[in-house]
Amino acid sequence: MLSQTTEYALRAMSHLAYVPDGLVSTGELAEFTKVPSNYLAKVLQLLAKAGLVTGRRGVGGGYRLSRPSDEITMLDVINAIDPIRPIASCPLGLENHSGALCPLHRRLDEAARVVIAMFDGITLKDVLSEPGRARPLCDTEMTKKVELTFDKS
Amino acid sequence: MLSQTTEYALRAMSHLAYVPDGLVSTGELAEFTKVPSNYLAKVLQLLAKAGLVTGRRGVGGGYRLSRPSDEITMLDVINAIDPIRPIASCPLGLENHSGALCPLHRRLDEAARVVIAMFDGITLKDVLSEPGRARPLCDTEMTKKVELTFDKS
Repeated sequence: MLSQTTEYALRAMSHLAYVPDGLVSTGELAEFTKVPSNYLAKVLQLLAKAGLVTGRRGVGGGYRLSRPSDEITMLDVINAIDPIRPIASCPLGLENHSGALCPLHRRLDEAARVVIAMFDGITLKDVLSEPGRARPLCDTEMTKKVELTFDKS
Repeated sequence: MLSQTTEYALRAMSHLAYVPDGLVSTGELAEFTKVPSNYLAKVLQLLAKAGLVTGRRGVGGGYRLSRPSDEITMLDVINAIDPIRPIASCPLGLENHSGALCPLHRRLDEAARVVIAMFDGITLKDVLSEPGRARPLCDTEMTKKVELTFDKS
């Protein structure tokens, strides 16, 4: 339902959240997110355009989050790639539907609103520090590293 | 959240459901669904490939539903265009995530399952004959026509 590009964006944002200090090279990002480099470059461009990441090209360049991970929601990331929009009015512009959506578009609108509610208010920090489960994107080694850095930050 | 193509597919399927007897020309479909003809042709190809519509080219050609509208769910139509899939296992293939999804992918999985539940079991017939609201795709004139044909069928 959410696109592959959106899922990749959430992976990239998660890894950047784990490494809040300094720029992360696209090579490191590709390695830890397991996203193909070319695809990742496109994803990062979209995230930069949406103001969620800041990048610098060239030697020593890379990306970082534009603001702390507890100020970026999952919905922010989703909307940077494929925005979820409620249906405000009849998409066909039918006059006799102007008062209320028809049963078809009402159901599509309801689904959009349910998903928005599921991801709004949930920050990257919330998702990445949820206790008692495998940590997003982290193998055993990365889990230990994140415990020493991200969890103390 | 659901793509524009999916929404167009639901429009096309709705109009075909209203006209269960005979083939509907692509011209008529484009007029009533207000979908651009070229785009509509692409949508119909996807629906035909998924076995939801049957078409015939040439003079007197057109499309019809492959089975009655009470045997086609909204989820069938959605899945013909952009399938909604739960996340069965860690998309990164991490060994230490094999027992359970991490909080990031669990949330994406939950959203997919919620939306599947909202559209599975809801047939086109259900949506098009829901009482008390403007009828999908129908202006005042088409509403009257549908009452005389679809509702009696």
